[in-house]
Amino acid sequence: MQEYGKVEVMEDKGAVGTTMRRTYTASIVSVMAAGHKDSFVTAAADFIHVELGGIPGDRHYGIMVPADVRQNWYPKGTMIANRRQISIVSAEECEEIAVRMGLPEVRAEWLGANILVSGLEGLTSLPRGSRLLFPDGTGLICEGENEPCTGPGAVIGEQYGRPELSGMFVKAAYKRRGIVCSVEREGTINRGDSCEILIPR
Amino acid sequence: MQEYGKVEVMEDKGAVGTTMRRTYTASIVSVMAAGHKDSFVTAAADFIHVELGGIPGDRHYGIMVPADVRQNWYPKGTMIANRRQISIVSAEECEEIAVRMGLPEVRAEWLGANILVSGLEGLTSLPRGSRLLFPDGTGLICEGENEPCTGPGAVIGEQYGRPELSGMFVKAAYKRRGIVCSVEREGTINRGDSCEILIPR
Repeated sequence: MQEYGKVEVMEDKGAVGTTMRRTYTASIVSVMAAGHKDSFVTAAADFIHVELGGIPGDRHYGIMVPADVRQNWYPKGTMIANRRQISIVSAEECEEIAVRMGLPEVRAEWLGANILVSGLEGLTSLPRGSRLLFPDGTGLICEGENEPCTGPGAVIGEQYGRPELSGMFVKAAYKRRGIVCSVEREGTINRGDSCEILIPR
Repeated sequence: MQEYGKVEVMEDKGAVGTTMRRTYTASIVSVMAAGHKDSFVTAAADFIHVELGGIPGDRHYGIMVPADVRQNWYPKGTMIANRRQISIVSAEECEEIAVRMGLPEVRAEWLGANILVSGLEGLTSLPRGSRLLFPDGTGLICEGENEPCTGPGAVIGEQYGRPELSGMFVKAAYKRRGIVCSVEREGTINRGDSCEILIPR
């Protein structure tokens, strides 16, 4: 049974204040990886193994990566810590994007997502520093909202054979495009897993 | 001249929205490292070199570290990504702590700080994901507030030969104890450097 929206305060057993509240449980609908250098589109898998640099073999894997336009406070190409390792979207928000674009569906793979969750309202608004915890102990850190760029719009346009859809994505996906995460504890995330979400106080 | 409080919006030249606003400039009053295994107290240096795991040789250095009570969503000792590499405090907040404790001063070294800044109001409230940028291109990521624990109280009590001070620190330092950071771009931070601070939108 989904504990959706039920707030459980974690017991504090330590010398410091409790820094997190346990708030949500979500379901992992699918896991995906982008194995091709020439496309960010992902493909479904039974599980993904995550290491400190992300998903080995995935397009976004790396302990360090070159800075791009999203980190424009560094010169392009500067090697920096990779905080955009894993992209997570929600079924609910993908459905909202589809509705806003007048489409039957917008698939997580087309957005280059690595994890599709359901049962969590407002995934994109999850605060930075939230933790996503999986059954084997794997832990991800929410690094914030994934701001929509134009790439997925082009993919959606191709999928439907309607290039005019391309320009609609950024606006339709605003505040609905999910989050990016980095790995806090290495492990394996399986399709069908549950996921606990801790929110910073 | 200090640009204290002056907001400058960064120009967006990329495909994505501008994710940061350039907000503050602070001064680096001193830099410090904790070279001894038996104490978190730090000692002043002319510069600190920071790598992806923090300050080499410092007590808190490590790409991965064992989880402790601050990450009590993992079993104690679980190897996790180190997001508490560098401790930063401000002269203004240390002064406030001293006043609240009725003391002439509370030194950054006694708090185990690695960087003492001045000219920045409310350092402890800096949002997670803020970036601190230094003249040689070094960049740190704010990982959030450093919640006061009892250790520094004991050090302060020893310094003044007044053990009764020990229990006062946690309350006096609440929301004033500074932040913890991780390294985004490696480099060197010098005493006397300026520091630009970018705040996430």
